[in-house]
Amino acid sequence: MNGHEVFDLGDFTLGGGATLRDAKLAYKTYGTLNDAKDNAIVYPTWYSGRHWENEWLIGEGMALDPSEYFIIVPNMLGNGLSSSPSNMPPPYDKARFPNIAVADNVAAQHKLAAEHFGIESLALVTGWSMGAGQTYQWAMSHPEMVPKIAPFCGSAKTSEHNIVFLEGVKGALTADDAWKNGWYDEQPTKGLRAMARVYAGWGFSQAFYWDRVYEEMGFTSLEDFLVGFWEGFFLDDRDANNLLTMLWTWRNGDISKTPGFEGTYEEALAQIQARAIVMPAEKDLYFPPEDEEYAVERMPNAELRVIPGVWGHFAGGGLNEKDTKFIDDALKELLAE
Amino acid sequence: MNGHEVFDLGDFTLGGGATLRDAKLAYKTYGTLNDAKDNAIVYPTWYSGRHWENEWLIGEGMALDPSEYFIIVPNMLGNGLSSSPSNMPPPYDKARFPNIAVADNVAAQHKLAAEHFGIESLALVTGWSMGAGQTYQWAMSHPEMVPKIAPFCGSAKTSEHNIVFLEGVKGALTADDAWKNGWYDEQPTKGLRAMARVYAGWGFSQAFYWDRVYEEMGFTSLEDFLVGFWEGFFLDDRDANNLLTMLWTWRNGDISKTPGFEGTYEEALAQIQARAIVMPAEKDLYFPPEDEEYAVERMPNAELRVIPGVWGHFAGGGLNEKDTKFIDDALKELLAE
Repeated sequence: MNGHEVFDLGDFTLGGGATLRDAKLAYKTYGTLNDAKDNAIVYPTWYSGRHWENEWLIGEGMALDPSEYFIIVPNMLGNGLSSSPSNMPPPYDKARFPNIAVADNVAAQHKLAAEHFGIESLALVTGWSMGAGQTYQWAMSHPEMVPKIAPFCGSAKTSEHNIVFLEGVKGALTADDAWKNGWYDEQPTKGLRAMARVYAGWGFSQAFYWDRVYEEMGFTSLEDFLVGFWEGFFLDDRDANNLLTMLWTWRNGDISKTPGFEGTYEEALAQIQARAIVMPAEKDLYFPPEDEEYAVERMPNAELRVIPGVWGHFAGGGLNEKDTKFIDDALKELLAE
Repeated sequence: MNGHEVFDLGDFTLGGGATLRDAKLAYKTYGTLNDAKDNAIVYPTWYSGRHWENEWLIGEGMALDPSEYFIIVPNMLGNGLSSSPSNMPPPYDKARFPNIAVADNVAAQHKLAAEHFGIESLALVTGWSMGAGQTYQWAMSHPEMVPKIAPFCGSAKTSEHNIVFLEGVKGALTADDAWKNGWYDEQPTKGLRAMARVYAGWGFSQAFYWDRVYEEMGFTSLEDFLVGFWEGFFLDDRDANNLLTMLWTWRNGDISKTPGFEGTYEEALAQIQARAIVMPAEKDLYFPPEDEEYAVERMPNAELRVIPGVWGHFAGGGLNEKDTKFIDDALKELLAE
């Protein structure tokens, strides 16, 4: 499930001024691009996610059906497969890897879609969490290519409370001396485990823990869930510098910072013409539905659908059938319009 | 404002089996105990709090009026004033300081009230956060002495999601090598600062940050609030081992574990005869109102009053007049009954 393609971005200049020389965009496609080249869907990854961790939403009979659509899953810069601190040669390696904006990710993905595949218009852009942020950014950066978007459990601008959450995550990771300001030879596992425990409280809702839903996932106690799911998650080949690179990307997400755009966040939202179904989760603790309600009210062609239930942010993570069906149903409806 | 008394607990045996020899309970009183000895209120401290940090709820014209009541504020064991890792002589010092249960704190406070002051019945027990936990524990351990309780922003049993929050806080603090498993000579300030940043996301609500209410508190940016309020909070003479001792107390809070009681949490709640006004805060992230609703439904003589607004857990921290008035009004009503 790990097989993927690599697109050469060449010397890729970032909005911040640095140039990633010989940059790579790792991606995987599902299905076949039709002759009209109008059946492509871009479905970006999320914080620390890899393309195979998006596959739960792709499949026969689902909205993202490879027999009908050509689904491109581009790996975020910094995720360890695309150009990242962990795989960049010196001098831009490790702690010197430059800051990556959400718009940089979308610029790279746009090169892949437009230059490599020759796509002029996408059928849809959709994504979870930071993937939702990239979805909004696609609609902002390339409105002519993006008639429909479905961002779920994410936002067009990272809110202040979300930044506070990220600061806690970062603080825990970087409290470990083994991190060595990014110049480690071995992963700072104590920091990664601490980060995992901080994340655990945010990723699911209070009600999820109250109801011990982790037992349905096969975990045998709260501590088993913290170690087995959460610590395991961040120890699964997720490099500390990569995580900090993507954290910066997340923290600084804001469509109103799109290069060339001069205006407020509200004005940026008003500019998004794409037909949108926006799906926050009812009990998401860092992307609460109120924030997306605020966004949808300011978007001319958007509809809010709150994913009900106790799964919190991970309602969009493909861990339970009910929430997956909710998202899939909305995507089907959007694609059929 | 720091002046306080110290009550000698003598050789104080904890529920867990250890004996704190020559143990001390630091406390401060406000007002005068009347001849009938029936005007005393116990108002315990909260996680890391010291008696002077409770004083915002005490004053002339307030419910806790020293001209009418004798208000006893006992400092929690482990808070640095009562017996704590930071002030205990060897061999029970630092990392060897034993685990303290909520019931141990209440047992110490009971000795002070009953043996030292000769009080047979209290007018009220009230407290914020872990102070609320001690309030519930008073009603459970000494029902004959406690006709009325007013726990706010706390619980009678620490819920699983609350434990997850605490695990994140602990993980961040102990990720710092300078902690040295508790055998440090200097405070692990990097870990304390990381812990502060984790705490920052939980202490106030998402809406508090969205609305930038920290500006009303005199902070000039989000980062200024994270450093000035939060890091400053945990660097204000709050010893790492003390914090871990109180964290254990919090994590293991559960009135159904009261020595001598055999039964479930629900059965323990049903046993609380005290007239209770229970005040969770609308947007408290670790003591959400749903949890207290669950408790109140099972208590025979309790009423739920949710503190409205965006202040989250710190609605009970005395930081804004509106929430303070809400709590004070309820206390007045309860005392007048």
